[in-house]
Amino acid sequence: MIDPRVASGLRDIPPSAMIPRERMLETLRKTFASFGFVPIETPHIERMEVLTGKGAGSDEVLRQIFEVTNKGGTPGELALRFDLTVPLARFVARHVDQLGTPFKRYAIGSVFRGERPAKGRFREFTQCDFDTVGTESVVADAETAQVIHDSLAAIGLDGFTLCLNNRKILDGLLDSFGVIDRKSAVLRALDKLGKIGREGVLSELTATESTGATLSDDHARALLDFVEQGKGSGETVLTMAEDRLSSHATAAEGIANLRQVLELLDAAGVPQNRVTIDLGLARGLDYYTGIVFETTVDGWERFGSISSGGRYDDLASLYIKRRLPGVGASIGLDRLIALMEEAKRLPTSATTVPVLVAQFPGVNPGTSVRLAARLRAAGIGAEVYPEPISIGKQMGYGSNRGHKLAVIVGPDEDANQVFNLRMLATRHEDKGLAWSTLEDSIRSALGILEQHEAHEPTPPGPTG
Amino acid sequence: MIDPRVASGLRDIPPSAMIPRERMLETLRKTFASFGFVPIETPHIERMEVLTGKGAGSDEVLRQIFEVTNKGGTPGELALRFDLTVPLARFVARHVDQLGTPFKRYAIGSVFRGERPAKGRFREFTQCDFDTVGTESVVADAETAQVIHDSLAAIGLDGFTLCLNNRKILDGLLDSFGVIDRKSAVLRALDKLGKIGREGVLSELTATESTGATLSDDHARALLDFVEQGKGSGETVLTMAEDRLSSHATAAEGIANLRQVLELLDAAGVPQNRVTIDLGLARGLDYYTGIVFETTVDGWERFGSISSGGRYDDLASLYIKRRLPGVGASIGLDRLIALMEEAKRLPTSATTVPVLVAQFPGVNPGTSVRLAARLRAAGIGAEVYPEPISIGKQMGYGSNRGHKLAVIVGPDEDANQVFNLRMLATRHEDKGLAWSTLEDSIRSALGILEQHEAHEPTPPGPTG
Repeated sequence: MIDPRVASGLRDIPPSAMIPRERMLETLRKTFASFGFVPIETPHIERMEVLTGKGAGSDEVLRQIFEVTNKGGTPGELALRFDLTVPLARFVARHVDQLGTPFKRYAIGSVFRGERPAKGRFREFTQCDFDTVGTESVVADAETAQVIHDSLAAIGLDGFTLCLNNRKILDGLLDSFGVIDRKSAVLRALDKLGKIGREGVLSELTATESTGATLSDDHARALLDFVEQGKGSGETVLTMAEDRLSSHATAAEGIANLRQVLELLDAAGVPQNRVTIDLGLARGLDYYTGIVFETTVDGWERFGSISSGGRYDDLASLYIKRRLPGVGASIGLDRLIALMEEAKRLPTSATTVPVLVAQFPGVNPGTSVRLAARLRAAGIGAEVYPEPISIGKQMGYGSNRGHKLAVIVGPDEDANQVFNLRMLATRHEDKGLAWSTLEDSIRSALGILEQHEAHEPTPPGPTG
Repeated sequence: MIDPRVASGLRDIPPSAMIPRERMLETLRKTFASFGFVPIETPHIERMEVLTGKGAGSDEVLRQIFEVTNKGGTPGELALRFDLTVPLARFVARHVDQLGTPFKRYAIGSVFRGERPAKGRFREFTQCDFDTVGTESVVADAETAQVIHDSLAAIGLDGFTLCLNNRKILDGLLDSFGVIDRKSAVLRALDKLGKIGREGVLSELTATESTGATLSDDHARALLDFVEQGKGSGETVLTMAEDRLSSHATAAEGIANLRQVLELLDAAGVPQNRVTIDLGLARGLDYYTGIVFETTVDGWERFGSISSGGRYDDLASLYIKRRLPGVGASIGLDRLIALMEEAKRLPTSATTVPVLVAQFPGVNPGTSVRLAARLRAAGIGAEVYPEPISIGKQMGYGSNRGHKLAVIVGPDEDANQVFNLRMLATRHEDKGLAWSTLEDSIRSALGILEQHEAHEPTPPGPTG
């Protein structure tokens, strides 16, 4: 016999995990679409040249690439995509003349990386990306943050923080120190602040080996002060930054951008306490050139950012000459779900329908099929148990799966055109309800159950 | 520069094609779920052994397999799935103890076959499968047909025909002729009826070479008569079959199964004129053992079946000893879309939002952002044009994309808290509407447009 396992680093997603996942994906699609982002799909398989093109992916990612060959194909020509950004760049390069700009697209799909398998790290995972391509507008910058916010809020996440920065501000500071040429080394050192602390970073910033940042002690301290004071609510931080850097054109641009983004987020109704500035935030070093975003769930910061993104200068420069600036972000569905699961805020159910219609031994199954079809036509999901086994077993199936109500029609009920309605959690049963009242009875029973559930205490967690 | 093309046989799906596709997928997910089918997801990459296991796929399919390797991996160990049935079998074998039976799952995803590229044939395409595993119930058989019907109806397809057969009936006939051991050759010949006609099939059926059917002339003619008379509405065909075969136990089982399925479909409200019997229908020769389904769109039969399936005896016998019978079907999304496109019944739009909120030069973009956020909060999709370019160009963008309405706020309107509402198709503009009436004004304008559209004549085609 063949072992039915999956390959290392891959996974099956069972219904109990897929049901909330599907619900989240639907919410994301709806939210993206409500802003005018439109869906595209690109193949899972790309030409190797597209994936490995200079600058397309980091060396780390390229080492993890999955090669694809079919019989008669040339080895090394094809591979599985490792993100949705390279395919977007290729897609836009190929189709931009028909698409026109601004082009706002979302894409949701699997990407593949041959990472060393570890808990919560998979070789195939889902990315949910949205981007606005072909504009440098600050309105698009703010909208990107707004979409992150509205998506997470729509999913039902409550306490989360959207953290903004603009790469131009730190650039301006380093330029004012005359050390912009050592930016990479400086940012690498800064990035360790959480791990090695201020003194550790100070000594890295002032290190003088050839790969080092080689900042003077004064500059290193000033930089650390700036970054440490540059964390918090918008107005305070931006005023501080303006005091220090308003005379530097690039930095002033970055500050003005963030100020306007905050204003637009306010106009869009994004609560101010969900937005914060972090002038040390330096994600996507080689890629982002303007505003950058990270999002953490309050109290669950150790899970890292669940939605990140930023503005880039030129999306498709590997393929076409036309310059295409853009801004976008990605929602890390797998990380978000892992977090909600750990916080015990993922509803667990193995069914999506509230009603199980039992099949009573000896009763024509047409009765159950007819009643279930009526419920579905009324917008109420209903599952017919396929076999006339004992009612007790059918109720057990419903309880395990998470059905809320069972409709039972025995021979007497069938003859009298009535049904019994059982609440599966309490086993309470209303008997002899007329078939003609089916939809109303079910609706009212579901309403009562919902009220009960709303009054149950919920465990503390990140979602509300 | 790198050529931004996709590999041979693969494709990009642009927004105009993805928007109706997404809508169909959402409809399918909703329909499947309303019957209690639950979603699962399995990796795109499976272990080669699982995919090539004896009986898992035909030789033809195995020749088309895409092998997958990553750096440090062993060549030949992994491959991309070529359908969703083998992964279902593996999934059920692995998880059946936790899942319990009956297990009703749906799965929607890409599958990969290295076929010779041709028009409308792609190496990556989408399958939409649903199956009920672990029961031999006729209720599950009927439900499978019902789900096919309800899915296609929900998509908006109108004239289509669900064609049923039960493999046991033809088996019974061949057994009564004493030629059941030559079934494959007989069915292969019968399958050519459409292509080579009655006389051609007759000569194949009576051919005497070693691979041939070697039927006597009488048997061959009787078989052809049976198959030709065995096409049509349920009662007529089943009565004919009963007259001929009721004394044969296997055939009688098949006839009784179809009769009960027709009764249950009637109880479920499936219109009788959409269901037909074809006793010659022999799809999935090596796989299906009971009822089988095919579905064609009336007038578009040349596109072939857009949804097919059937009952199988034992799903997971390659992996576990437990016998798991089941029934299921697959909706061929790509074929269905190709058909609707050719029939000019696919709505073409490059946006999913009805409203474009323009950005007037010189007006604070916060106004547009605020009004758009209000519309979204009211459930009306709204896109803000990201740059304050000329209003004419913004209207051009909206017309091209398919927005219906534009909200325009110039400096005077901004000062007076009013807006202008333009119908993009007619350029009719209502001026000076108060911001406080925004949601109501948009709703009523959209209602008027919808009425106009409903009154426009629609081209003839398969959908209604």
